[in-house]
Amino acid sequence: MKEFLKNRGSVRDYLDKEVSEELLEDLLSQAAQSSNTGNMQTYSVVVTREEEMKKRLAPLHFNQRMITGAPVVLTFCADYNLFTRWCKERNAEPGYDNFLSFYCATIDATIWAQTFCVAAEAVGLGICYLGTVSYNATEIAEVLGLPELVIPVVTITVGYPKEEPKVSDRLPIKSLIHNEKYEEKNVDEAFSYKESLPEMQAYVKENNKETLAQVFTDIRYTKKNNEFFSEKLLDLVKNNWSK
Amino acid sequence: MKEFLKNRGSVRDYLDKEVSEELLEDLLSQAAQSSNTGNMQTYSVVVTREEEMKKRLAPLHFNQRMITGAPVVLTFCADYNLFTRWCKERNAEPGYDNFLSFYCATIDATIWAQTFCVAAEAVGLGICYLGTVSYNATEIAEVLGLPELVIPVVTITVGYPKEEPKVSDRLPIKSLIHNEKYEEKNVDEAFSYKESLPEMQAYVKENNKETLAQVFTDIRYTKKNNEFFSEKLLDLVKNNWSK
Repeated sequence: MKEFLKNRGSVRDYLDKEVSEELLEDLLSQAAQSSNTGNMQTYSVVVTREEEMKKRLAPLHFNQRMITGAPVVLTFCADYNLFTRWCKERNAEPGYDNFLSFYCATIDATIWAQTFCVAAEAVGLGICYLGTVSYNATEIAEVLGLPELVIPVVTITVGYPKEEPKVSDRLPIKSLIHNEKYEEKNVDEAFSYKESLPEMQAYVKENNKETLAQVFTDIRYTKKNNEFFSEKLLDLVKNNWSK
Repeated sequence: MKEFLKNRGSVRDYLDKEVSEELLEDLLSQAAQSSNTGNMQTYSVVVTREEEMKKRLAPLHFNQRMITGAPVVLTFCADYNLFTRWCKERNAEPGYDNFLSFYCATIDATIWAQTFCVAAEAVGLGICYLGTVSYNATEIAEVLGLPELVIPVVTITVGYPKEEPKVSDRLPIKSLIHNEKYEEKNVDEAFSYKESLPEMQAYVKENNKETLAQVFTDIRYTKKNNEFFSEKLLDLVKNNWSK
């Protein structure tokens, strides 16, 4: 397990080879055995295979090549729709149209999705997360026909890798672990290795920036975009979940 | 992998045996190789081993026996504190005190935590998630000394299992999978197996309810509590994150 987890990487280019429905179902089923709040399983997944649907999703994911290039796109959702209908059909008064329920369902959907990724990689598949789902959750919900109390949380592309994935650099683990009480970690100790990597230095240069941090703040994850997409996401939660 | 994932279960009773710092660090490091937004790794974990700290955390987790009974309690946090300080020290203007950044960091912390759980179970450890962290995140943040831009997301107890974990029932996988477009699943097909289980029927009886759904709505996850804890959590996000 150790070598397997340590040597993984995201896969963005896939072979032209199907992932069968049976295999997908089996992997999702293995993953559903992971923990979830109160064993309510307030999550669901929408499977996209059709070209037409991929083409509709692609611009919402900023046309990242994985959407049309992967055989399967999975959109994992926080889903209190099924549970709430169960309550109503069983003479029980559901009270799940609130932020906490959305938040816990989001965490549970993520746990399911990530365990699916581990299971998928274990059988030789490659996966890639698309953070764009958080930006355009409203439009993605529309394309996939999501009803009330269902919000897309995590999008993952899946397929057989065209080549071995590259293992990404990570921060020193000690910079992320606090014993008993939180103590602010030293910034240089955390980031100097990453900053020293030739590919990171090239990345700063090609973006005409002074520091790697500026590539993040000025280009990749700007305050303006973050605030714009925050409003959008909160509106979705308000309109589609917690009235 | 398949049998391993399929046969897992949460572990609530632990042997009186330490989990070494080296092993813990190694497992957290394996898990950190999983995907995260932009490779920013905006998460951290607080490790609780001291009796005194466990006693302070216990009531915040509604005195669930795992907190004082497990050798290690892990509180995984959404953490933009380190990243933001990096930006500031590198002449970059951070813009991460908003809901979207909190939301993405929450998902990333959860991915890290869940991969840790898989890695831990693979070496014979048992884990249990404590959903109570979402209820009392404010007080837990205080006990652990969390600064601005750090919010506890997931709490997991870890240790060597006293006995084989029980494998929990799950909904039929087909009730959770939608092809191309979302279509509301049949409630009976989704829940009749769970409702038929003798332990579930006993559970309804001992709670003096008519249906299993009522145990959830009236006792375990009530509208009143959900709304109360929603406000609390949103206040924490506002006060400690997105001013």
